[in-house]
Amino acid sequence: MVKVGIVGGTGYTGVELLRLLARHPQAEIVAITSRKEAGMPVADMFPNLRGHIDLRFCDPQDAGLDKCDVVFFATPNGIAMQQARELLTAGVRVIDLAADFRIQDLGVWQKWYGMEHACPDLVAQAVYGLPEVNREQIKTAQLIANPGCYPTAVQLGFLPLLEAGMVDESYLIADAKSGVSGAGRKAEVGTLFAEAGDNFKAYAASGHRHLPEISQGLARYAGKPVGLTFVPHLTPLIRGIHATLYARLTGESDLQALFEQRYQDEPFVDVLPFGSHPETRSVRGANTCRIALHRPQGGNTLVILSAIDNLVKGASGQAVQNMNIMFGLPETMGLELIGLLP
Amino acid sequence: MVKVGIVGGTGYTGVELLRLLARHPQAEIVAITSRKEAGMPVADMFPNLRGHIDLRFCDPQDAGLDKCDVVFFATPNGIAMQQARELLTAGVRVIDLAADFRIQDLGVWQKWYGMEHACPDLVAQAVYGLPEVNREQIKTAQLIANPGCYPTAVQLGFLPLLEAGMVDESYLIADAKSGVSGAGRKAEVGTLFAEAGDNFKAYAASGHRHLPEISQGLARYAGKPVGLTFVPHLTPLIRGIHATLYARLTGESDLQALFEQRYQDEPFVDVLPFGSHPETRSVRGANTCRIALHRPQGGNTLVILSAIDNLVKGASGQAVQNMNIMFGLPETMGLELIGLLP
Amino acid sequence: MVKVGIVGGTGYTGVELLRLLARHPQAEIVAITSRKEAGMPVADMFPNLRGHIDLRFCDPQDAGLDKCDVVFFATPNGIAMQQARELLTAGVRVIDLAADFRIQDLGVWQKWYGMEHACPDLVAQAVYGLPEVNREQIKTAQLIANPGCYPTAVQLGFLPLLEAGMVDESYLIADAKSGVSGAGRKAEVGTLFAEAGDNFKAYAASGHRHLPEISQGLARYAGKPVGLTFVPHLTPLIRGIHATLYARLTGESDLQALFEQRYQDEPFVDVLPFGSHPETRSVRGANTCRIALHRPQGGNTLVILSAIDNLVKGASGQAVQNMNIMFGLPETMGLELIGLLP
Amino acid sequence: MVKVGIVGGTGYTGVELLRLLARHPQAEIVAITSRKEAGMPVADMFPNLRGHIDLRFCDPQDAGLDKCDVVFFATPNGIAMQQARELLTAGVRVIDLAADFRIQDLGVWQKWYGMEHACPDLVAQAVYGLPEVNREQIKTAQLIANPGCYPTAVQLGFLPLLEAGMVDESYLIADAKSGVSGAGRKAEVGTLFAEAGDNFKAYAASGHRHLPEISQGLARYAGKPVGLTFVPHLTPLIRGIHATLYARLTGESDLQALFEQRYQDEPFVDVLPFGSHPETRSVRGANTCRIALHRPQGGNTLVILSAIDNLVKGASGQAVQNMNIMFGLPETMGLELIGLLP
Repeated sequence: MVKVGIVGGTGYTGVELLRLLARHPQAEIVAITSRKEAGMPVADMFPNLRGHIDLRFCDPQDAGLDKCDVVFFATPNGIAMQQARELLTAGVRVIDLAADFRIQDLGVWQKWYGMEHACPDLVAQAVYGLPEVNREQIKTAQLIANPGCYPTAVQLGFLPLLEAGMVDESYLIADAKSGVSGAGRKAEVGTLFAEAGDNFKAYAASGHRHLPEISQGLARYAGKPVGLTFVPHLTPLIRGIHATLYARLTGESDLQALFEQRYQDEPFVDVLPFGSHPETRSVRGANTCRIALHRPQGGNTLVILSAIDNLVKGASGQAVQNMNIMFGLPETMGLELIGLLP
Repeated sequence: MVKVGIVGGTGYTGVELLRLLARHPQAEIVAITSRKEAGMPVADMFPNLRGHIDLRFCDPQDAGLDKCDVVFFATPNGIAMQQARELLTAGVRVIDLAADFRIQDLGVWQKWYGMEHACPDLVAQAVYGLPEVNREQIKTAQLIANPGCYPTAVQLGFLPLLEAGMVDESYLIADAKSGVSGAGRKAEVGTLFAEAGDNFKAYAASGHRHLPEISQGLARYAGKPVGLTFVPHLTPLIRGIHATLYARLTGESDLQALFEQRYQDEPFVDVLPFGSHPETRSVRGANTCRIALHRPQGGNTLVILSAIDNLVKGASGQAVQNMNIMFGLPETMGLELIGLLP
Repeated sequence: MVKVGIVGGTGYTGVELLRLLARHPQAEIVAITSRKEAGMPVADMFPNLRGHIDLRFCDPQDAGLDKCDVVFFATPNGIAMQQARELLTAGVRVIDLAADFRIQDLGVWQKWYGMEHACPDLVAQAVYGLPEVNREQIKTAQLIANPGCYPTAVQLGFLPLLEAGMVDESYLIADAKSGVSGAGRKAEVGTLFAEAGDNFKAYAASGHRHLPEISQGLARYAGKPVGLTFVPHLTPLIRGIHATLYARLTGESDLQALFEQRYQDEPFVDVLPFGSHPETRSVRGANTCRIALHRPQGGNTLVILSAIDNLVKGASGQAVQNMNIMFGLPETMGLELIGLLP
Repeated sequence: MVKVGIVGGTGYTGVELLRLLARHPQAEIVAITSRKEAGMPVADMFPNLRGHIDLRFCDPQDAGLDKCDVVFFATPNGIAMQQARELLTAGVRVIDLAADFRIQDLGVWQKWYGMEHACPDLVAQAVYGLPEVNREQIKTAQLIANPGCYPTAVQLGFLPLLEAGMVDESYLIADAKSGVSGAGRKAEVGTLFAEAGDNFKAYAASGHRHLPEISQGLARYAGKPVGLTFVPHLTPLIRGIHATLYARLTGESDLQALFEQRYQDEPFVDVLPFGSHPETRSVRGANTCRIALHRPQGGNTLVILSAIDNLVKGASGQAVQNMNIMFGLPETMGLELIGLLP
């Protein structure tokens, strides 16, 4: 059994970790911390867990995190970087679901996240936890930077094309739409039901924090810098990201075969038949990324549709996938989830 | 392994049966029929099942249903009664998710369902599949009438009170609210997103088909006829039923203890602390009925709140629970589902 | 032209007053105050008002409210009672959309609202602004207590029955469902889209602040105290209240005629044909209360369905209706709104 | 008074015409036809109209349409072309809200709409009813092809850029998201609440009927053929279209000024400050198109955000705007609508 600690379990990635780990045959949740809610039964805050999780939130000091095999940080940005070193030194492996270790260029990170980084050396050591790209490094990683939700959907959509050099990497467009849970479980006016319901809008169209994370990944796959325009939108659904990606083809090739081959051994990437339309609900609650290709009017513009559940493949599910890889467990263990439809 | 057949798998109770049975360790789905869609891969209609269910819909004649151990009817009312006898004669056990065998009084049934009954003798033989009441008979039943969604939520809420004779059974009120999936996967204007979204209304307030089913059950628990007013409402959520029940107390008693004791051994009924408010999302995708009691202003009116997922405990989950009981499997097998929240 | 001031315009009743008054032919909005947002153009916060309202929020001190003909308080409970006297003394008429002046029994008010009342004498002088009951007093009132949203829907549904003495007033049940905008434009976790969306629950089932307000009204119409059980629910729609009311008949009468006659001259109460089901969307954005009667199975229980838009007839529309009456304008002026459907 | 007839009033554009025309000071609705619902009061189907519209649906033969000044066709594609000539011959002006007269190239039309055109000569004579482009021709037009919903949002967003030759017209991308009412009031499984709710997907990504309509318009503004990739999406809101448009700049210019000047006299196009994010709810129920510009990272890609209500500026509101222009009425008459927010 892998002994698991969770820091900051009162948000949506926290409850989602609990949902997944409660049914994981090889994970034992040792502690879940929340300074503010210490003492409260977890199931009082998240009533879906009644009967499944008997833990109470505990104060980080009392949590015994240093005796865990792995600690997940389901915290706001800037927390994990304060606490990771102590755990790593104690031999605990760390998976950060926030952005602290995702971007290798510290100047870029500090510009977009507006704070000084607390441990630059750990950034260099961290492994970006996208298994479809970094599976080997993840196996032995001590510190995982779990990818962001948009970055997961967008990178998996562009990856085969950039690796194969099939598109003009200087002009990529990612038009992405997210459910409201992506904004987290924070009391804010903009994500109230009466504000975000029956409404659609773009936000941060001039620049969103996930842009440098995506660009870093795409540049790596392309072997050179990329030009990416990324526009996120808020859409009135709870879970789900749908990325619509546009790229200009630079040559002819069997693109469908390219995608199918690239992902043929990936348990959590599903390439649909050419011309399909993946729906977010088909992956609601599941760890799957579904991808489909279109080539409108047979022209040079390729459209890639990519759908995930932002809380699963876009966050907690991917984190558990990383844990499985790190601890030599079957990668799909505890993650063979079927989307809830309808 | 229990060999399972499903008749009429293109509706919501059908896909939900598939979602549950695909992960059930002792069930083998042998066939799923649809005259209209014969030949189509199930996962083409229900994309959440891609990678989990490889079956195609098949014509009932080719399905080999008579070689199954159990056949679920996930069909409209009036179908199972045409086909059950042949299967029963072949030694196949039958679970009907529709209403064909729910009401013992054939005159009542024919009045509310507007058709002649095809096999009155089977009605007499059928067991009403509410495990919290009929567990023993279910074990040996050949034919199960799986309860309706509203009837499950309402009966479980009133049951302990009527068994204990604590309330005036002549004046019971059930104000019930259902998600739109309760109307099924039928092309109808009234359940379009643009009609049912951002809208709330009662329907069938003067009389709904589930009224006689509920009344039949309540009368049995009370040991005498009951007076029930039942008003269903359509609410803009996909899954979920919330029943708000009102009853007049006829004496003093520890009602919370009454409920907790009645359901202490029930794996799928969760009595919340007195004064709680069960949320439908806490059971979204789960087979649980959550119940809470209120006694406003300490008066004589008791308010019982009861929440289920209409497609799980209100339909397919309960059907699988019945299957588990019938075949001597652990009752919770394949049903230890955690609600999807958020 | 009636010179209008609005105190506290950053909530939903505030923006709704602006939407209605911007098109009102005899109202001139002089000032709208918000300490926190002073200086911000109103249309920056409420983009629907761009091109329709050019005002900026201003500090209350700079607002010149004492030169208005009428001031609306669209503020949290406890604000209007601090500021009303000064305005009234200056000859300004006041309409409070909050609860400060709704309950005549100060002990009751203080118990439910948890604060000391700042001006008990003004409570005695205030007129409860339900035009269908108090039209004459409203004409000359200086201070209006605009009714709550639930109280409007519930009182209009029970009113004819209690006035006529047709039901057992000791056992009334009001099962009410509200859209999320009823909770206001406050940053709170419980009303986030990802919390309140695709979810249904009761809340405050053991006691809600609107209970004493409703009971006070019903007792007046009945001429004696009433026994009321009131259970509010949160439903995933933005606007709308649907109240399902239950009462026991004490005699025979043409109830449909009773309702039609009681409301025949009321411009904003629409009695539907017997057996109808009013939908909240039919009054979305409109000042109408639609009511329908049911008598299930011809028994002694009468079911009354009552639907309003909580922000219009349940708040700002009713406030403008009161203003029209107070200033001798046609009662429907600026309020001939058609519900937005779909 | 303009005497108005409506053919085919049982869909969403029909009820929306009624909502707008019922309050229009110079329009008199003479008849609204529906073969299927002849005799039914309009308000029985659309309860929001109770008390506002007293008409019944009537059979087309009895409607006296030839005595109207103008007839709106709120019908499926292919109906208006069968009936327009007779009305035009009788001197009645015609506004078709469907696609029959939108595309000048008959071969293109026949390919995308899959039918033979019934009156090619009328296509040549029809005026495309986008007032921001064709105001002068609309004044005297006998036959108006009212633009589609996507085409309105997309064309208004690209128009100033193409007229000014500021972007590479050979590579335009329109990623558009529509509320479900855009699919009409037809009983179909795909637009059921339980299918389209809490879900997001692209559809017709390989080719949608609105593509040739948009391309035709853009080519005209550019003075040469354009290369457009258009991907529509279904989003779980009732009303609203949000188009996110991408274009490559070919030179430097003050783009914000360009847009502001182009639309400075347009009553129904609102150019927001640079870097804004128009929300669909800000135009819910209103005839306004709100547009904002972004230039992410100061690069060469321009992002244009364009939001409308698909049933108002995208259909019935624009049709009434055309009627106003045709009959010499103030263009904004009856259309000074404020979006319903929240």
